[in-house]
Amino acid sequence: MRNLRLDLCYDGTNFYGWQRLTGESKTIQGKLETALSRILEEPVTVSGSGRTDAGVHAMGQVANFHCENPMPCQTILKELRRYLPQSIGIYSCCEVSARFHARLNAKGKTYCYRIWNSDQPCVFQRRYVHKVQEALDLREMERAAALLLGRHDFSAFCSIPRFQKSTLRTITKASVQRQGNEVVFTISGDGFLYNMVRILAGTLLEVGLGTRQADSIPGLYGGKREQAGPMAPAKGLCLQEVFY
Amino acid sequence: MRNLRLDLCYDGTNFYGWQRLTGESKTIQGKLETALSRILEEPVTVSGSGRTDAGVHAMGQVANFHCENPMPCQTILKELRRYLPQSIGIYSCCEVSARFHARLNAKGKTYCYRIWNSDQPCVFQRRYVHKVQEALDLREMERAAALLLGRHDFSAFCSIPRFQKSTLRTITKASVQRQGNEVVFTISGDGFLYNMVRILAGTLLEVGLGTRQADSIPGLYGGKREQAGPMAPAKGLCLQEVFY
Repeated sequence: MRNLRLDLCYDGTNFYGWQRLTGESKTIQGKLETALSRILEEPVTVSGSGRTDAGVHAMGQVANFHCENPMPCQTILKELRRYLPQSIGIYSCCEVSARFHARLNAKGKTYCYRIWNSDQPCVFQRRYVHKVQEALDLREMERAAALLLGRHDFSAFCSIPRFQKSTLRTITKASVQRQGNEVVFTISGDGFLYNMVRILAGTLLEVGLGTRQADSIPGLYGGKREQAGPMAPAKGLCLQEVFY
Repeated sequence: MRNLRLDLCYDGTNFYGWQRLTGESKTIQGKLETALSRILEEPVTVSGSGRTDAGVHAMGQVANFHCENPMPCQTILKELRRYLPQSIGIYSCCEVSARFHARLNAKGKTYCYRIWNSDQPCVFQRRYVHKVQEALDLREMERAAALLLGRHDFSAFCSIPRFQKSTLRTITKASVQRQGNEVVFTISGDGFLYNMVRILAGTLLEVGLGTRQADSIPGLYGGKREQAGPMAPAKGLCLQEVFY
């Protein structure tokens, strides 16, 4: 049995997220499995490094799948690019060891949350940014981001914490930077809870808008969902990279 | 009568071009006129610096319109941003002298034609680039672009030359540059004929692919349409700037 790794990106705008849903073809996993099953003429199940929600984008998603068909990787890549919609892009397809699993072996991930912070039009970026016109206090947002570093109980930053075995996660990098008209929140960690990055982004936005103090962040660890800020919209979020 | 100037951008993907068409609301001029007529409560006709074709984008389009309503420019801008679809962005709205006319006063324009020249996915740029996977000879394309400089008869680069009083145009800048995965053709001139930039892009692509010699360019001046290359797709073209 071969084990193949896919590195891919997608514009999540018109998808119901990563995970295959019965009777719903507009998922990234569903599109990949349908294409691969046709190309390889055998049923294929694809494992992603993690699920992305409806409307969330990916620049560096990783997946793997098993197959019997001996078709060369370059042919699979070429065929995939021909079958898949333009909103899904495959960087590479390569043979990996039988033990590789895109989700179980992932050591960490980096996400970006992009905020369009200007009254200027964001026509060409409009599907990939969350628009916030009000002035943002970048220094306070940076200070709040720095307080995320380390191992904490992120229960307050998870939509359905009871579904998780543990709500402890380690954040290794967290920054807020202005890039032209955008304010970009970048975060790396060993794993993220359900909706965690979007709730963190919503909480940092409250800090930026002055309705929450940066210093309040540590008090949220181990807290309840309602203590943290609102969940920021999906369109601003992008899975940048998965580490193995 | 007031005369107001609009500076705007748009993603042309889902529009039937700039020019208002009867019974067809999906044009940029049509959207602007409908919005302005409602906001100002009087019939408004908008003049653009020039028409862009269906699917062509603009980063720096300029338009003007006359009205009686004394509404402040900042209010008109705010209302326009509220009424218009997200694919049309207004940078500014300002009072100009009665003599200003967006088309008649335009001294020149700059267009960019973006070619995605890589086998890597162009998911996030897919609406704004024309994909050409084959290797392109950039040096030859640059040489061909340099031969466009000056005043020439561009009859061979015009879809319907008989509609033009003159097919003479002056090109002041023309370059071809690699920018990451893209090859960008930028051209400035005192005016452009119908489909001229797209036919020039198609002709330069032939040079890049080696099916046409750069040196053949001067021989096309004053020639017939069929002597030049094919028209490159609309999605790669963007009106960058209008000079006054």
